[in-house]
Amino acid sequence: MSQVYEKVALIGLGLIASSMFWASRRAGLAGEVRGFARSDETRAIAREIGLCDVVCDTAAEAVQDADLVVLCVPVGAMEAVAREIGPHLKPGATVSDVGSVKKAVVSAVGPHLPNGIDFVPAHPLAGTEHSGPRSGFAELFENRFTILVPEDSARAEATARLRRYWEGMGALVEEMDAEHHDLVLAVTSHAPHLIAYTMVGVADDLRRVTDSEVIKYSAAGFRDFTRIAASDPTMWRDVFLNNKEATLEILGRFTEELFALQRAIRTGDGEQLFDYFTRTRAIRRGIIEAGQDTDAPDFGRVKK
Amino acid sequence: MSQVYEKVALIGLGLIASSMFWASRRAGLAGEVRGFARSDETRAIAREIGLCDVVCDTAAEAVQDADLVVLCVPVGAMEAVAREIGPHLKPGATVSDVGSVKKAVVSAVGPHLPNGIDFVPAHPLAGTEHSGPRSGFAELFENRFTILVPEDSARAEATARLRRYWEGMGALVEEMDAEHHDLVLAVTSHAPHLIAYTMVGVADDLRRVTDSEVIKYSAAGFRDFTRIAASDPTMWRDVFLNNKEATLEILGRFTEELFALQRAIRTGDGEQLFDYFTRTRAIRRGIIEAGQDTDAPDFGRVKK
Repeated sequence: MSQVYEKVALIGLGLIASSMFWASRRAGLAGEVRGFARSDETRAIAREIGLCDVVCDTAAEAVQDADLVVLCVPVGAMEAVAREIGPHLKPGATVSDVGSVKKAVVSAVGPHLPNGIDFVPAHPLAGTEHSGPRSGFAELFENRFTILVPEDSARAEATARLRRYWEGMGALVEEMDAEHHDLVLAVTSHAPHLIAYTMVGVADDLRRVTDSEVIKYSAAGFRDFTRIAASDPTMWRDVFLNNKEATLEILGRFTEELFALQRAIRTGDGEQLFDYFTRTRAIRRGIIEAGQDTDAPDFGRVKK
Repeated sequence: MSQVYEKVALIGLGLIASSMFWASRRAGLAGEVRGFARSDETRAIAREIGLCDVVCDTAAEAVQDADLVVLCVPVGAMEAVAREIGPHLKPGATVSDVGSVKKAVVSAVGPHLPNGIDFVPAHPLAGTEHSGPRSGFAELFENRFTILVPEDSARAEATARLRRYWEGMGALVEEMDAEHHDLVLAVTSHAPHLIAYTMVGVADDLRRVTDSEVIKYSAAGFRDFTRIAASDPTMWRDVFLNNKEATLEILGRFTEELFALQRAIRTGDGEQLFDYFTRTRAIRRGIIEAGQDTDAPDFGRVKK
């Protein structure tokens, strides 16, 4: 793989940025990667583990001369960062991000970028339940989608270059507009996360079943909810506050359907339940065929 | 491991029964295992793959002389099977089952068992998204809990023997009463399954996002729901119809909490969201510490 950018700046050094650094270095995609994180502790860890070629003490210093600047901070922090770096960007540079919502990021960041900057927001659909500078690894994006949401004003060549960068890190790249992105993610990610958080909260609250029972018997289904309900609280707070409309729309639909199934349980309508459960099985097959999961029977089994 | 029962009968030959046969054979826990399944096709497959030492054409024949009879049929079919085998049970035999609900099984099966039979209902908390006689494997129960719900009339030695049988198959064994079992499972399994089914149904229904988009971008969280929403429709219909009260209670609590979080999103109450998401993270840590899941960062990643 050959170099795609001479100089890259990563603002924010958590799971995604650290994985980008290792993936990009493995493939030789960038000449130099500079990193910045707001907290002294994160910068100290980054220096200790060799995360980024240079760790800078200010965002302004990190973005100077960079051909690509990627904002890897929580969605709620994007605007302040954009305001800070705007005046220091190199003319002709590309600015991108890795936020889980796109309409809100476009509104927050766009106005602070000077003319002549190509703004190509992006969202890698990859993550683990861990966060922080030590949590990254080069394989995070392999066989996972990254969605590019190029602004109308961005040059096609800037988008194509960013695509090569993500493909070099192992990602499958797609493009769509910000509004559609936010709806697709509300269905596939934001609503499921809120539902999982809720179910875990209910289990934790229930007096008649102890937490230790919930934990012991979690393999019966509950466990799959806790995995996604363990994600970074700051990130998820910002996702919900910044993709309100689409998330609330999907949750509204969800509640409607849930009530219909509850009613079928209450009235003993076995046929409705059976038909519903048969239909949902087909979607699962599609996911396995698309290579986005495995149906190995010992999936998730703890090695003894 | 030494033999625990001389003769065992498995009624119903799906995922659980077939896994029991392979696990029991591996450890030498039974002298002879007889199997029965209602469908001709299942019996033919069982004979083809050597599932059970003898495959019988009637349930009555299978249970004759058996020291342990395990009902491995859907909960809705338990009563008919119990009525059929009742007169053919060997005096002093133990009858058990593997149903996911226990109060309903006790009511359905108990009245058909003659005096002198030890009735020790059981529930192995293990499964995969596959079903049928070919889906079993000897390791299914390893490091997973099996809950015994002995009836008051069962002799302590019968319960202890069944415990040894399950431990021999690799399970961790616990005992509790039927009512508590059904509530614990409503929280850790039944409500999560219904919620997962609902979320997958909503995604499938949504016109503005295509099924192929849902499938492509499922790794962002949705995927974890589809895994449990792919389980056997007949089994799950019967679970919900037979654990109505506890499931509806938990779903009621769930809806209440979900509404509170939706309201926090609508009103922009970031603090409430953040606090909630922080609390749920702790439960996840408990599950990993208890060895019921792994937090390996590449968990679930598809091998290329």
